[in-house]
Amino acid sequence: MKIERVETAYYRLPLEPMGDAGHGAIDTEELITLELHAEGLTGHGYAYTIGRGGRAVRSLIDNDIVPLILGRDATNIRGLWDLMWQRLLYVGRGGLASFSIAAVDVALWDLYGVREGKPLYALLGAGAREIPAYGSGVDLPKPLRALLAQTEGFLERGLPGIKVKVGRVDPRDDEERLEAVRRLIGEDIDLMVDANMAWNTEEALERGRRLERFDPYWYEEPTIPEDVAAHARISREMDVPVAVGESLHSPHEFRRYVDEKAAGVLQIDPITNGGITASLEALKMADGAGLSTSSHYTDELSAHLLCASKEPVYLEKHAFALDPYLEEPQLVTNGRVRPSESPGTGLRFDTQALAPYRNA
Amino acid sequence: MKIERVETAYYRLPLEPMGDAGHGAIDTEELITLELHAEGLTGHGYAYTIGRGGRAVRSLIDNDIVPLILGRDATNIRGLWDLMWQRLLYVGRGGLASFSIAAVDVALWDLYGVREGKPLYALLGAGAREIPAYGSGVDLPKPLRALLAQTEGFLERGLPGIKVKVGRVDPRDDEERLEAVRRLIGEDIDLMVDANMAWNTEEALERGRRLERFDPYWYEEPTIPEDVAAHARISREMDVPVAVGESLHSPHEFRRYVDEKAAGVLQIDPITNGGITASLEALKMADGAGLSTSSHYTDELSAHLLCASKEPVYLEKHAFALDPYLEEPQLVTNGRVRPSESPGTGLRFDTQALAPYRNA
Repeated sequence: MKIERVETAYYRLPLEPMGDAGHGAIDTEELITLELHAEGLTGHGYAYTIGRGGRAVRSLIDNDIVPLILGRDATNIRGLWDLMWQRLLYVGRGGLASFSIAAVDVALWDLYGVREGKPLYALLGAGAREIPAYGSGVDLPKPLRALLAQTEGFLERGLPGIKVKVGRVDPRDDEERLEAVRRLIGEDIDLMVDANMAWNTEEALERGRRLERFDPYWYEEPTIPEDVAAHARISREMDVPVAVGESLHSPHEFRRYVDEKAAGVLQIDPITNGGITASLEALKMADGAGLSTSSHYTDELSAHLLCASKEPVYLEKHAFALDPYLEEPQLVTNGRVRPSESPGTGLRFDTQALAPYRNA
Repeated sequence: MKIERVETAYYRLPLEPMGDAGHGAIDTEELITLELHAEGLTGHGYAYTIGRGGRAVRSLIDNDIVPLILGRDATNIRGLWDLMWQRLLYVGRGGLASFSIAAVDVALWDLYGVREGKPLYALLGAGAREIPAYGSGVDLPKPLRALLAQTEGFLERGLPGIKVKVGRVDPRDDEERLEAVRRLIGEDIDLMVDANMAWNTEEALERGRRLERFDPYWYEEPTIPEDVAAHARISREMDVPVAVGESLHSPHEFRRYVDEKAAGVLQIDPITNGGITASLEALKMADGAGLSTSSHYTDELSAHLLCASKEPVYLEKHAFALDPYLEEPQLVTNGRVRPSESPGTGLRFDTQALAPYRNA
């Protein structure tokens, strides 16, 4: 099944101003859509960024990846992943090369489903599962009042878990916010905390311990992803499981966390991880090591992938919801989500809704 | 000293067809040049690739980095490096983000030298040193006869060291080639071998041991850079020092090799490492741990940087010589090179020579 044509488009989607401790202020999501055509069928893929690098992602796809894959067999998804990885290795091994590979890889999996007339989860040999969803803001700069209003919105949607960003300069700020949120949600709702790599190891331990009394469900990205030993130490010294994954740009990076017992929860993001193929490897590692799994953003794709995981504890309902731009937005029912039953990923962009945000 | 304007250009430089075990066939070098203007002075920087990703590097600079740095103080090189790293973090942590940051960082260091009227090595508090240079082909596909002709060329230039690629499918091929090269060069010339990440750990050990009888000076990139533990094991189990660096895209990646005693020689490449600022950190780590240092490509920049290292054993004279495109090509005298005495890096492209290779 020969790959005949690949088309990309680039959009800048405005966001309500938000931010976190690691990445700073965020006001735009970049979206790179991709259509891959083979023998009359089309696979849809995409990549996104939090506001920078999207045009470079598109450039890498158009100028470097497409010439590499045109004319090759679209059914050899693993082989194409290896080819892209190897031929981009010099400027890759992660970074935005992983995002570019992901856009193609997602389209290849989608095409596989379209061809077989099966939803993605079924291609993975999994049954459709209902996965608990948690509400997630990118809310570090939000005043407390707005944070509580956001939390009330999550509760009204029936979400059984809620994540709050930490990493404000004054530790008492974080405590005040978590205390207020915990008071609002009560003891039965899970409360995740996310430091977005703000701290060094000692700070991460000290700040983390100050937050333990709010009974966090997990402690996400306490320090920089390069320092696996620090995550291992935090995992050993704290009772709260460490969660990582959104910043890991290859299966190799997940492997270190698993081998060094540096995380209790692996969070997949099939765009930042380097594609569905890469995220599936991470899920397999989690299964092998008895770790819980969750997702970062990519709500629609991850609803499929987590069905193939042994212990998917939560899917993230992310602040960057693509819902206004999707033909089939994901529903939350009783605090849970299910994967789409459409063939492939089921993720189809509403090009009319996206049109105003299209850029050259 | 405000950054007022940054201009980039993109070139595709044809290469004699070459290749190695990790990256495959190579026939083009991409060159991205950068001019950074501040208060009437200009700093020159650049990045390169081995044929893919160059337009994405340029896109990232033009669309994402330039808006970030315009109007900021060009003298705050470290602060600008940290800013670029942090604001590209989501699509970065290495990969081609490091190449893009490097192009700007090199221009900032150059501008510093131009401003002070001093060559780069002097800005680093070092004296000019003569550093032994070794000849390096990207020659895995070259037939033996051509490999020997290349080797003779290196000997005629008076180079005291010569590197040969290994990683042919049949191990006897590698042995035959090394045996012939060793016979040609005699015992007094150093012979480096470079596997370009071709092997898994067991293969790397087995293949490496078969090559030890040719007395290699170092064993470069025996396996993938992600597997630091494998490099540590190879370092322990073999008598030949392991050399790495060209595939390490941040100081964090060098740190792991140093901490885990996984290399005996650190090779800097101020473009792939993420800039002069990043390579200097790697050199400092080498000094702290008593490791030897060397360079990958970037002959002109590395001649300065290695002057600031305690034990610079060799500078690589790389097959991708930029000499035809430089106003001041680097000279090799008695098998040694010296840094340029011009202010800044001394690296100035001959835009007329480059003109035929300019791309949109």
